Amino acid sequence: MNETASRLAALRAEMKRAGVDAAIIPQADPHMGEYLASHWQVRRWLSGFNGSAGTLVVPAAAPAMLWTDSRYFLQAARQLEGTEIVLMKEGIPGTPSIEEWLAANLQSGATVGVDAMLFSTGSLRSLRKALKARDIRLETTFDPVDTLWPDRPALPKCEVFVHDEKYAGRPASAKIADALEAARMHGADAVFVSALDQVAWLLNIRSRDVRYNPVVTSYVYLGPEGNVLFVDPDKITPEVDAYLKAQGVDTRPYAAVRSFIFGLSTRRHVLLDPASTAYGILEAFGERAVEATSPISMPKACKNEVQIEGIRNAMRRDGVALVHSLMELESRMAAGETVTELDVAEILRRRRGEQPLFFDESFGTIAGYGPHGAIVHYEADEETVATLRPEGLLLIDSGAQYLDGTTDITRTICLGDPTQQERSDFTLVMKGHIALARAVFPEGTCGTQLDALARQYLWQHGLSYLHGTGHGVGHFLNVHEGPQSVRLNYVPAPLTPGMITSNEPGLYRAGIHGIRCENLVLCVPALDTEFGRFYKFETLTLFPFDTRLFATEMMTESELEWVNQYNARVYDELSPALDPEAREWLAAKTQAI
Amino acid sequence: MNETASRLAALRAEMKRAGVDAAIIPQADPHMGEYLASHWQVRRWLSGFNGSAGTLVVPAAAPAMLWTDSRYFLQAARQLEGTEIVLMKEGIPGTPSIEEWLAANLQSGATVGVDAMLFSTGSLRSLRKALKARDIRLETTFDPVDTLWPDRPALPKCEVFVHDEKYAGRPASAKIADALEAARMHGADAVFVSALDQVAWLLNIRSRDVRYNPVVTSYVYLGPEGNVLFVDPDKITPEVDAYLKAQGVDTRPYAAVRSFIFGLSTRRHVLLDPASTAYGILEAFGERAVEATSPISMPKACKNEVQIEGIRNAMRRDGVALVHSLMELESRMAAGETVTELDVAEILRRRRGEQPLFFDESFGTIAGYGPHGAIVHYEADEETVATLRPEGLLLIDSGAQYLDGTTDITRTICLGDPTQQERSDFTLVMKGHIALARAVFPEGTCGTQLDALARQYLWQHGLSYLHGTGHGVGHFLNVHEGPQSVRLNYVPAPLTPGMITSNEPGLYRAGIHGIRCENLVLCVPALDTEFGRFYKFETLTLFPFDTRLFATEMMTESELEWVNQYNARVYDELSPALDPEAREWLAAKTQAI
Repeated sequence: MNETASRLAALRAEMKRAGVDAAIIPQADPHMGEYLASHWQVRRWLSGFNGSAGTLVVPAAAPAMLWTDSRYFLQAARQLEGTEIVLMKEGIPGTPSIEEWLAANLQSGATVGVDAMLFSTGSLRSLRKALKARDIRLETTFDPVDTLWPDRPALPKCEVFVHDEKYAGRPASAKIADALEAARMHGADAVFVSALDQVAWLLNIRSRDVRYNPVVTSYVYLGPEGNVLFVDPDKITPEVDAYLKAQGVDTRPYAAVRSFIFGLSTRRHVLLDPASTAYGILEAFGERAVEATSPISMPKACKNEVQIEGIRNAMRRDGVALVHSLMELESRMAAGETVTELDVAEILRRRRGEQPLFFDESFGTIAGYGPHGAIVHYEADEETVATLRPEGLLLIDSGAQYLDGTTDITRTICLGDPTQQERSDFTLVMKGHIALARAVFPEGTCGTQLDALARQYLWQHGLSYLHGTGHGVGHFLNVHEGPQSVRLNYVPAPLTPGMITSNEPGLYRAGIHGIRCENLVLCVPALDTEFGRFYKFETLTLFPFDTRLFATEMMTESELEWVNQYNARVYDELSPALDPEAREWLAAKTQAI
Repeated sequence: MNETASRLAALRAEMKRAGVDAAIIPQADPHMGEYLASHWQVRRWLSGFNGSAGTLVVPAAAPAMLWTDSRYFLQAARQLEGTEIVLMKEGIPGTPSIEEWLAANLQSGATVGVDAMLFSTGSLRSLRKALKARDIRLETTFDPVDTLWPDRPALPKCEVFVHDEKYAGRPASAKIADALEAARMHGADAVFVSALDQVAWLLNIRSRDVRYNPVVTSYVYLGPEGNVLFVDPDKITPEVDAYLKAQGVDTRPYAAVRSFIFGLSTRRHVLLDPASTAYGILEAFGERAVEATSPISMPKACKNEVQIEGIRNAMRRDGVALVHSLMELESRMAAGETVTELDVAEILRRRRGEQPLFFDESFGTIAGYGPHGAIVHYEADEETVATLRPEGLLLIDSGAQYLDGTTDITRTICLGDPTQQERSDFTLVMKGHIALARAVFPEGTCGTQLDALARQYLWQHGLSYLHGTGHGVGHFLNVHEGPQSVRLNYVPAPLTPGMITSNEPGLYRAGIHGIRCENLVLCVPALDTEFGRFYKFETLTLFPFDTRLFATEMMTESELEWVNQYNARVYDELSPALDPEAREWLAAKTQAI
């Protein structure tokens, strides 16, 4: 019996004890974060699948199933091999949703078990509604993990530090006042914040609690009783405590949050965002809860002048690190050294580490060579790692956390002479990238409305990619943040000046190669006319696109001009920081096509 | 005191009697239709504004307000002049919604009066929720109209006729079986249909109850008690009665619907679509109601082979009628005759009337010359009518109901030598039209995702249009139908083969000119690849775009090719039905550019 089998058997025993006919184990923590501290990696521990998105459903009387999205289809299939777990491919016609599967396969009167602290209010309500229609009960306190998982990692203990106002651009006290003012518009006199990146942004604090995401495991309450950060006291140095006090914030233990909530006056009106608040928290607030969009979401997404200046500087340093990385990669390959995908990740990490204000990577580098590039969120390991050869495409998606900004860039480069298919595929992706980069759009436009601009040329050939075209990016914070998003699904968040979003169309041919071309772009004002206010994107990322991969015969004059102007700008902005050899290298890479 | 003032005064007297602090008078009937029989034109009668969209709100203690959308801003401003009614421009930043206005301006404890038979279930629920948050009561049986409006038109009495299966392509009995089968998937054993176009499509019956829309004022119930059409018996000839019986449908009086509903077994599960069912009807069903998307919506939208063959034939006849119309217009102007916008509408009506299978126009012709073209839903009347001169742009939006299909076409033509601005504006609109016409997109794509393709070139110049880019079109039925739509707002209906949708970007410069370029397009399969199934549009409408208006220097080779191929196809398809003179005229109009 393998590990997964014995863990699932233990879970089913607990389910039996609790009268649960099916358990749902999400990839989630009580803060509704996308990235989890190891303490919360329950789904990974149970299933063996280590992708960052996916939900395990364990019925008592049927094989367990894992729902995940297209980024992880290949990886999940590989990691679930040899287990009972069936892969359920989200977004593929014919795949039922979890609700649909449960409604169709459980008997009326059955019980589904979940831990309400691991479900957002919105998702738990929709689950409850779907199950109720089939007379299936939802047990919301099914939490057997501590019992099942003897060596479960503890909650993180990393030290908290202050993110200096010279980078953040606005003091915590002012952000707190803004949040309370916004809450008053909703008839609330207090605010509760669960999302870790919102807490970190609000208080200008950071830590290392979650790999790649410099957040602090904590909650914040703002209200007439005082402003309180619920955090493990071991993480707070006297300096940070003094800083927080100066900003008008007291600390209490992380575990005290529920008793604090229960102790609040029943006449308190506390604003909570159902999208980022666990149902278990909302239940604790009960009648005190005022549900509304978080007043922190938009101010956090719309970067201020100091943050924008910071990310521009960070982009220059990141570009320099990339120049050094690619030069090293090329020269080691030219010298006949064995260079693997893991070496690429190591080079990038080391070269970025040489730059001032570097703090960490912003996610695990994806260096996918040849067919590995088609595995959208591929992360090389010792078992699968490929050695680079002087041919084919190498996809490198990587990024860094600098104290003055977060970067995220994908380049697809050819290691030999490109084939016609490589050039054609790359060019279709770039035509979409350019169309989005050059878009002008009216105030109020959401990413969903622009997504097709990036896909239109691929679609003409029956090609597509299943991931989003763009995600919001934090400032020395999570590399994925909301509310905005450029994707097929409808996300009703208007693209607003100051927002930083990725522009990353791609194309993945299973078994052949993967292509993704990603820059970060800043939303800025474009035009004011009798038809209203129009916005556009300013590209922030500074590193050339591989000029050998463009099939210029497929491009319009103005597309060629965009590429040449972009590469020329990269040279102008990076070359002052480069030594003559690197400058020469970059000049060659940014020659007009 | 003008008419509007005295009518509003009488309404306020009734409001006072009923304890209502604000009344909402929508443009609606109990069937949730977009177009209303005159009996239901209450908002028009009260306000004097005759646009097809707009809601009147009459507070007891403040001036009345009319909310309407951009199509009607200019028309409403004109028609409301001299009344107390304030125009509230929907879609303009800063305009509160009706809910927001009421919540902000009524006292807590106030009462808002509505007639629940004139509100869809969805809209009434959202209204109730918004008002409840401010402790404002909703009185749902406030219906003083019969009292106020002594000469209110009676319900329509037009005779019903059968829409022959040779046009409809599928017998009513089969459609009924399909609808009941679909209802069973939702756990329902019966279906209730309120939407008039759904009833007409389902039973293959038509009438002339609503101007331009060949519907029958009626409801349908399908269920174990039998299938029942609720309709005024005076409208049913013995032949139609026999036809209905043969399809398994009995008739009962229109007014008997509520007592029939109350008499149903309380164990009946009746599927109703909250989007197209009045709240008053849903309330009558009570616990019997199963809310779900209408099982008739998609089959009606996805035309069958017979219907598609029919609309192709209708398009050829409509194109011929347009050729004759434009030739007549040109020759009368060339002869120095006075030709007005109203004459244009008369010519089109007469020329279409000469075609076989013509039944009616599908909406009132919009012939807007010069600045009138900028009034999006302009309908000339004796007071405003403009005389055409040999200069400037004429926008003509018109369509017909043929027994085998419904047409809707807009052309913008220049009556003299086009100016540079006219050419440039027209070309930006056409570039968007062409981009949408040529789009290829994956299964599951909704109109909202494609909308930007049609707007992107306008946006680049800070230009836009506030109406949708495309609406669904019925088959010998309403010229606007759902569920699909190509527009800025999110509409979650996937574009599916068989759907007919308009492609009509535009540009309106107030006081100068209006441009709209509209064809109907059919969704058809395009490609099947490893990335899934892809669809595209086939243009159905057959009439050339004005070749003199293209600024070819702004167009790509492939855009020019599209225009030339389209115009050439128009010539090929229409010329066999034309006499030599008309053929020569069309040959000149379809010369390659």
